[in-house]
Amino acid sequence: MKTTNNSGNDLLRWINLSPVHEKRGKLTEVDFHDLPFTPVRTFFISEVPAGTVRGGHAHRWGKQLLVCLSGRIKVLLRQDDREQSAICEANNRALLLEAGVWSQQTYLDAGSSLLVFCSHPFSCDSYVSGAVSESKWKQT
Amino acid sequence: MKTTNNSGNDLLRWINLSPVHEKRGKLTEVDFHDLPFTPVRTFFISEVPAGTVRGGHAHRWGKQLLVCLSGRIKVLLRQDDREQSAICEANNRALLLEAGVWSQQTYLDAGSSLLVFCSHPFSCDSYVSGAVSESKWKQT
Repeated sequence: MKTTNNSGNDLLRWINLSPVHEKRGKLTEVDFHDLPFTPVRTFFISEVPAGTVRGGHAHRWGKQLLVCLSGRIKVLLRQDDREQSAICEANNRALLLEAGVWSQQTYLDAGSSLLVFCSHPFSCDSYVSGAVSESKWKQT
Repeated sequence: MKTTNNSGNDLLRWINLSPVHEKRGKLTEVDFHDLPFTPVRTFFISEVPAGTVRGGHAHRWGKQLLVCLSGRIKVLLRQDDREQSAICEANNRALLLEAGVWSQQTYLDAGSSLLVFCSHPFSCDSYVSGAVSESKWKQT
């Protein structure tokens, strides 16, 4: 499990997964020892109607790893004057989300589901709403 | 998140989850602070043909938490002279698997998927094959 495509100016920071495909199904492992942070909680999002938009916030602290379990999820990222997006699928990579990066997820397909690993416990104080402008957001 | 139905002689040890249902989907959190062990790795099983049987082994050490993400998975457990089974679904409970308990999973529906939290790193030495008789298995 290695981090790739992580140039300093790239919001899209990928972690390589190594799913094992067999006739009896696919096994995808996430060994915390190989991550750039130690998860203390996870949450997963499922049963989302196709086309639904979720997220729309940044976190003041902590890292998250976004793993698409099924379907396709478009992830939009913003920080300062940068904006990038990617389609996350249930394949061999997961998206590493750094603190301060605003993120929004669009669940493109019915049955799309997302597993998120978090470096910190849940805290309302960590959230920065998407309604806050970029310039103001940077001051928080 | 609390452990329930955990009498000393019961192989089926459940951990309560508290999924949040909304029109925009379902969010299910697993906060490691609330678990009876600290996960160091996860793996998830997906794209399994309906009717497929997986597992069929015990672990000499460590605990696992089995969370059904979608579909229905029948879990068969054995230890000593006890045998119990349960249908795991994507609902409000997860199955806690103790060391020494032999387990087999049957993926009943197409699209059934399983997320497993593990207390220990992967090790071949931890596995006890289902082909080993119960009496012999107890000696390992």
